[in-house]
Amino acid sequence: MDIKGIIPPLVTPLMADGTLDREGVDRLLEHVIEGGVHGVFILGTTGEGPHLSYDLRRQFIARVTESIGGRIPVIVSISDTSMVESHNLAKYAKEAGASAVAFTPPYYFIPGGPELQDFVQDMVELLCLPFFLYNMPSLTKVTIPLDVIETAFQCENCLGLKDSSGDLFYFKQVRRLIGKRDKKLLIGPEELLAESLLAGGHGGVSGGANLFPRLYVSIYEHMQAGDFAQAAALQREVMELSCGLYNIGRHGSRIIQGIKGALELSGICQRHLAAPFRGLSADELKRASEVISGMEHWLSRPTTA
Amino acid sequence: MDIKGIIPPLVTPLMADGTLDREGVDRLLEHVIEGGVHGVFILGTTGEGPHLSYDLRRQFIARVTESIGGRIPVIVSISDTSMVESHNLAKYAKEAGASAVAFTPPYYFIPGGPELQDFVQDMVELLCLPFFLYNMPSLTKVTIPLDVIETAFQCENCLGLKDSSGDLFYFKQVRRLIGKRDKKLLIGPEELLAESLLAGGHGGVSGGANLFPRLYVSIYEHMQAGDFAQAAALQREVMELSCGLYNIGRHGSRIIQGIKGALELSGICQRHLAAPFRGLSADELKRASEVISGMEHWLSRPTTA
Amino acid sequence: MDIKGIIPPLVTPLMADGTLDREGVDRLLEHVIEGGVHGVFILGTTGEGPHLSYDLRRQFIARVTESIGGRIPVIVSISDTSMVESHNLAKYAKEAGASAVAFTPPYYFIPGGPELQDFVQDMVELLCLPFFLYNMPSLTKVTIPLDVIETAFQCENCLGLKDSSGDLFYFKQVRRLIGKRDKKLLIGPEELLAESLLAGGHGGVSGGANLFPRLYVSIYEHMQAGDFAQAAALQREVMELSCGLYNIGRHGSRIIQGIKGALELSGICQRHLAAPFRGLSADELKRASEVISGMEHWLSRPTTA
Amino acid sequence: MDIKGIIPPLVTPLMADGTLDREGVDRLLEHVIEGGVHGVFILGTTGEGPHLSYDLRRQFIARVTESIGGRIPVIVSISDTSMVESHNLAKYAKEAGASAVAFTPPYYFIPGGPELQDFVQDMVELLCLPFFLYNMPSLTKVTIPLDVIETAFQCENCLGLKDSSGDLFYFKQVRRLIGKRDKKLLIGPEELLAESLLAGGHGGVSGGANLFPRLYVSIYEHMQAGDFAQAAALQREVMELSCGLYNIGRHGSRIIQGIKGALELSGICQRHLAAPFRGLSADELKRASEVISGMEHWLSRPTTA
Repeated sequence: MDIKGIIPPLVTPLMADGTLDREGVDRLLEHVIEGGVHGVFILGTTGEGPHLSYDLRRQFIARVTESIGGRIPVIVSISDTSMVESHNLAKYAKEAGASAVAFTPPYYFIPGGPELQDFVQDMVELLCLPFFLYNMPSLTKVTIPLDVIETAFQCENCLGLKDSSGDLFYFKQVRRLIGKRDKKLLIGPEELLAESLLAGGHGGVSGGANLFPRLYVSIYEHMQAGDFAQAAALQREVMELSCGLYNIGRHGSRIIQGIKGALELSGICQRHLAAPFRGLSADELKRASEVISGMEHWLSRPTTA
Repeated sequence: MDIKGIIPPLVTPLMADGTLDREGVDRLLEHVIEGGVHGVFILGTTGEGPHLSYDLRRQFIARVTESIGGRIPVIVSISDTSMVESHNLAKYAKEAGASAVAFTPPYYFIPGGPELQDFVQDMVELLCLPFFLYNMPSLTKVTIPLDVIETAFQCENCLGLKDSSGDLFYFKQVRRLIGKRDKKLLIGPEELLAESLLAGGHGGVSGGANLFPRLYVSIYEHMQAGDFAQAAALQREVMELSCGLYNIGRHGSRIIQGIKGALELSGICQRHLAAPFRGLSADELKRASEVISGMEHWLSRPTTA
Repeated sequence: MDIKGIIPPLVTPLMADGTLDREGVDRLLEHVIEGGVHGVFILGTTGEGPHLSYDLRRQFIARVTESIGGRIPVIVSISDTSMVESHNLAKYAKEAGASAVAFTPPYYFIPGGPELQDFVQDMVELLCLPFFLYNMPSLTKVTIPLDVIETAFQCENCLGLKDSSGDLFYFKQVRRLIGKRDKKLLIGPEELLAESLLAGGHGGVSGGANLFPRLYVSIYEHMQAGDFAQAAALQREVMELSCGLYNIGRHGSRIIQGIKGALELSGICQRHLAAPFRGLSADELKRASEVISGMEHWLSRPTTA
Repeated sequence: MDIKGIIPPLVTPLMADGTLDREGVDRLLEHVIEGGVHGVFILGTTGEGPHLSYDLRRQFIARVTESIGGRIPVIVSISDTSMVESHNLAKYAKEAGASAVAFTPPYYFIPGGPELQDFVQDMVELLCLPFFLYNMPSLTKVTIPLDVIETAFQCENCLGLKDSSGDLFYFKQVRRLIGKRDKKLLIGPEELLAESLLAGGHGGVSGGANLFPRLYVSIYEHMQAGDFAQAAALQREVMELSCGLYNIGRHGSRIIQGIKGALELSGICQRHLAAPFRGLSADELKRASEVISGMEHWLSRPTTA
């Protein structure tokens, strides 16, 4: 399996009452596939995974895998505080036809290095699917140490690491650890996509690719083609989106608020977040509309009624 | 309902295979009740709540409530990253006969102040049981702001706050907020029990009270009786326990490792932790034995075969 | 030398142009001595030491030692990022007749444990005066480890530790380390004064004792006399002061702004802070006046014209 | 003045007794100038500025400016906890012929946003030389907010910002703020040099350029020439140096230990650090020798006896 390129961390489309917006899921998937993405990553941070009930997580896995029907790889985040629940979710994902799973360290206690070694080894024994490690220290309170990554990389089933630290020095240390091995290193923060590719990264789990998949795919393709200056120019558009759309809301949920708000404006899915978090207000939605005005060509799809 | 005094955050007795140690649960409950505790707090941090499967959490709630049979109050932590799962657990706890629930902020995203206000209001609407707020910033990444506490205190169903921050200045600000209202303020870290009572606190959710309930109950009773010097002397024994027993293991799980190890040595329950965390090794157990040697009079119960 | 009890961290009275307010220094010293304090601590955090020029620091040392004339001990903070400058200041303090010095770890780099060991040993060799270690992790970025404290305690010249961490568990670990040795443990945050004394502490470096020395001295004396309940009641007045006066300003300088503002209102010294920090505005001063209204009996001195 | 390109943060060569190694200074300057650097940055973090006595700081400024004799720009860090001392140092630097100064926020208190605004305005009024802002949050405890940078950029004397945060997203936000204005943005961490240039940065204050100036100058020149792939390849050599040489020592001083150790091995200056920090031990020096073995061609200078 060769998972690389632009892999949007799919938002989870929700109705106002918190149930799954099934039509929205389908429209979102067609939208990103049409935009040229190389896979989807579901139930991660942008997907609000930890905020959803297990029942809804399973519904979403089922709908996504069915709707995609094998056209592109599906990676399911099974991150949890409980290994048993992670395992249950992995089994469900496998049966549904997912391609791989991803997991952070358990995010309630703060595990020490040896405890993380135990954790990775326990997970490797349990898992029946290939996996990515998922580094997200701002939310899990722990950076995955390089020696723990090395342990995981010994395992054939380990596909690589998704790094959402935003710390490009750490990212490059992991890249150096990979060397010539066939492990993939994906960057989380879309603001660093082009730079991460210059540094040897293999792709991005870019939140904005929910909305403007072609923009991120273009950056990736330009970098692959050695056209760095053009990639850098497009990367500046990502900064505009990030500094605009993701700063309308405030607090912990503002990035997802921005993406979901713009998706509603684009007719793709509704803007609601899982409780207790809220979608953008009507006023905020208006500001979102101004931010994305002029970027519609990146939507690259016919308008939905 | 008047919940105060010494309320151990019960450990969750587990078998080596991760299933519930039902006999251990019963022995532990008899042990702490005999030791004079004023309630139990289950599935919190010391109870490894977030690390257990939901199925095991429900089994534990059922066993504890049944075994106690109303003799003392049972508080169930329903803290979760997903409000739906919190709510599910609260319903189960109510049906099982629990007295109250407790919850931290959701601990994946980092909610801002207004988001915490939304959260508390959403929870209050959902809950069918009286509740304690639960402040645990080292693990949830957020200190509950005073204005959010004030909002919760407006609610009749709110019994008070359990503060595990270890920040006694914050604790005293909450105490000042309570003033003459009938809300209870319980301290988490047992190392500050006597001092928190001097500061106007109403009791302690003291991990060591799993093991030596009479020691903590004695501190509480001495402080109630105005016998501060004697309380301070006993509090020094708590420091010995803490600096000894809780420093044998290392990393995030060391306090629970120490308590569970000593409980095994005392014939009460097994020492296993929920994966990926491990119980004390045989060598470490030997050191635990030395630390608690001389403190057996605080067990205050007949030896179990 | 037996330094314990209430030892205000003296503010440094300044004129509007940033020069020393010499008359203010004298009035402040008479005020706190009359209030019964057991020593003064100068050029620490509350004294804005690191924000003052070295010339002004020396002027202040000279004025304070001369004005006190040996009536009570004078402790001089020589904390610095440069050991040479610390040493220069210590020499000056000794010649001026100071009783002791105090120092934090150097606060630019973040020293590791072995580097702190080196630091303490280097300082001990250089110093010609008895000294206190000074733990102030929120500003120096490092908590002094217990083994480094143990190294310092081996030295006869070490008088003890001033702990401004606000972490009473740490404080009690240091107290346990002292055991029966003749080392003194002083608490920084005045909000925890009574509780720290219950925990075996020897006194407080209480900022509010610049303003209301008798309040803090009374808490100390009540605790010494075993009259804990009365001490706790007075401690609640400290909380009122802290939650009121120290929350008028905002940001890093707000505690000093509050103390200096109230000192100006009481006719003792001016309210200016060292640049770039500002004293309270006229509006804020009015609010300060309301907060301390009703507490004037703690001033315990004739009004200054 | 057009300050950009590779500007090494010069180490401060010291004798074993802590005095200035004047010959070492001269050799180091000839070495980096011969290596093609575009300026030097002195008394910053790598220069151990805050750890040196003021007297030594002045000696170093004098020696560097005299020895360089105007061949390349000299930027002097005047960062301090005391604005008066910063100002004194700036005056000295101007008289000595320095080109510009740089300063972090004052690093004892933690200033709030408005306090930082006050600080920048106070500094701008005082300074008689062009200046760079210097963002170094890991050591100063505060990230300079974008609105404070905007205020500084209004000032003609402000040349730009040196960003040592390692947070490339922040870096790119500052770059976006600059837009088409003539302000320069320099990156601190050398591990991100090429990526920062792709992101629109103007140069690097790269510690390793003390040792291998040609390596860093080559990366800069390749990026300027649009030869990104070659720059990325050289950047991997920087990673080798960083992961090797800067990880021999441990704790806060390890990067400087590595650079100074390798400089001693290369016959340029001694390896001592300002107390309480230590240079590499003999054993560690041997490991440093192995790390840099094979990289000598980057020294690009005749061996010193």
